[in-house]
Amino acid sequence: MFEELSSKPAAWLSGAGPQAGIVLSSRVRLARNLLRCKFPPAADVELRRKVVGEVRSAIERSILLKSGKFFQNGDLGGMDRDFLVERHVISPEFMKAGEGHGLYLGEDESLSVMVNEEDHLRIQALTSGLEVGRAHELATQADAELSANLVFDYDEEFGYLTACPTNVGTGLRASVLIHLPALVLTREIDSVINRVTKVGWAVRGFYGEGTDVLGNLLQLSNQTTLGRSEQEVLEGLEKVTRQVIEYEESARYVLLRDAKEQIEDKIWRAYGILRFARVLTSGEVMNLLSAVRLGLGMGVLKEIPLGLVNELLLLCQPAHLQKFAGREMEPGERDAVRAELARARIEKALSGGANGPGNSKTA
Amino acid sequence: MFEELSSKPAAWLSGAGPQAGIVLSSRVRLARNLLRCKFPPAADVELRRKVVGEVRSAIERSILLKSGKFFQNGDLGGMDRDFLVERHVISPEFMKAGEGHGLYLGEDESLSVMVNEEDHLRIQALTSGLEVGRAHELATQADAELSANLVFDYDEEFGYLTACPTNVGTGLRASVLIHLPALVLTREIDSVINRVTKVGWAVRGFYGEGTDVLGNLLQLSNQTTLGRSEQEVLEGLEKVTRQVIEYEESARYVLLRDAKEQIEDKIWRAYGILRFARVLTSGEVMNLLSAVRLGLGMGVLKEIPLGLVNELLLLCQPAHLQKFAGREMEPGERDAVRAELARARIEKALSGGANGPGNSKTA
Repeated sequence: MFEELSSKPAAWLSGAGPQAGIVLSSRVRLARNLLRCKFPPAADVELRRKVVGEVRSAIERSILLKSGKFFQNGDLGGMDRDFLVERHVISPEFMKAGEGHGLYLGEDESLSVMVNEEDHLRIQALTSGLEVGRAHELATQADAELSANLVFDYDEEFGYLTACPTNVGTGLRASVLIHLPALVLTREIDSVINRVTKVGWAVRGFYGEGTDVLGNLLQLSNQTTLGRSEQEVLEGLEKVTRQVIEYEESARYVLLRDAKEQIEDKIWRAYGILRFARVLTSGEVMNLLSAVRLGLGMGVLKEIPLGLVNELLLLCQPAHLQKFAGREMEPGERDAVRAELARARIEKALSGGANGPGNSKTA
Repeated sequence: MFEELSSKPAAWLSGAGPQAGIVLSSRVRLARNLLRCKFPPAADVELRRKVVGEVRSAIERSILLKSGKFFQNGDLGGMDRDFLVERHVISPEFMKAGEGHGLYLGEDESLSVMVNEEDHLRIQALTSGLEVGRAHELATQADAELSANLVFDYDEEFGYLTACPTNVGTGLRASVLIHLPALVLTREIDSVINRVTKVGWAVRGFYGEGTDVLGNLLQLSNQTTLGRSEQEVLEGLEKVTRQVIEYEESARYVLLRDAKEQIEDKIWRAYGILRFARVLTSGEVMNLLSAVRLGLGMGVLKEIPLGLVNELLLLCQPAHLQKFAGREMEPGERDAVRAELARARIEKALSGGANGPGNSKTA
């Protein structure tokens, strides 16, 4: 499964959106539940299967969603699930326990729907760069089309009802994936995270709650869904993101002013190692790509496109590597294949073919 | 002084001699003193000046030595002296204290004569690779031509008399500069050094007695000059060197067999950093060049010629860098210029011009 995707970046990683130098992607997720139907954690397999069936048929009748694919538990192996987690399409726990789950995945992955995750539906839209509004439009359009054939559990006072109280209300979670290497280097990151959290935003690592700050990538998102309109959340997220971008940009300015040589050295060494190393761990590659990404943003380095760096962030993850190699691999073997892939992709970009499949085995 | 040499490698670093993959150079030094004349440490300035004059006139009448240049104290500044120390032409203390010293430097630096170092004459020949015999021929020929116009202090029983008893006899010191990275990586180096020292050979760092083992470079030389014929010393050194080469080669074999990926990774990373770093300390550059040199020897890497790596070992030293830049520099500035020089030279070699002056300021 997903062999055709394994060497292809998701559209939201194209590096083409607004502010894409610092903001990798924007995401909007809507939680919806069917009226008079137990929430998935409380439902038995039969009920969950029924819900999957109803949602699937609503998806098939939707115009926006008809070009994608629908998967059920049996369709996906463990590696497929890991692969989708790496692509930010599903949550790590989704589809792991029991039958009766479904997944809709749109053609370019900008739209997806998890069926029977914590809620009956989790509609998700992902866009490149800082485009929370556009992501929201996409998700809302999908929501509207689906609600034509599904009746959602909606309370006049509370709004959409959800399995977890933190999602009640709009059911909306909006987030951005943001790259803050200069704030990490100048050691201002903790103070920035504090300020952002204090005004009500959640800050998480690359893969959501509880994950490490790998590659200096953070997710900013709203904490609450009750008592704030969708518009307030979206505008608030955009505003706080622009503020964090400003902090990051001034940290970059300070680095260039006070430690130009050291920062350039760090960037170019990272580039040199990516181009030539024979062994790269998952953690190291994230940090090297982060440094090169910073170099592109600061104009220090121009050799490779931003999209390739984003792409490698994804393709160098374990499940992607194993899909790429066509077999399961031990971590040690993955480290060699990861280095090979990074070399091959960069060589390809340097020789003028950045957008090809890059599955050449030589570098 | 020496501006024309500062971006040029010495002939003995060409990488063209036998076993040049492991042995950088061979050196033979003959200590000679004039009959009935106090040794330099005991001589006053007037006497030292007289000796310089006599030796200089003998050099000018020699056929072999007439193409070089002769320098006296006033000719050389501190940086010039450091430069010559880096080129292995003079000893670190030479010409530092008092007047009355001289230096003959042959055109391609394969022959040189220090006048009034510890002895009146130190005739030195340097050749590329393992060619102790050829170095000895050169030094002996110079010795013979000089002795036509100088009377050396020679005792029928003891041989040549010298200021320090360790040089009495043949006055010969023969040495090789050898690169042993695999023995260092496999941690066998100490045991090899022990074996070599036990059978009577001295082992020193790159810059002679008491210097660090920078860049995994060691000097092997004879300890004594009394009671062993020149032939015994030369053959013995060649034999022990061939033995050490074998140890190094089998350590390389073991590395490729047991840790191929790790060693290739180390080599390629070193190459990547040399190609792109913006800051390189003197110690780091030696270790990076050592790894790349190992890569060339093991056939892991073929991008640049061995001669360039040898050349960079020399050109990246502090006095060479300052000569190259045409000004004195603080260590921090040197680190940036060193990285720039390494990049420029490697780029030049990659674009097909390895032998040019490489003084381009862009990389």
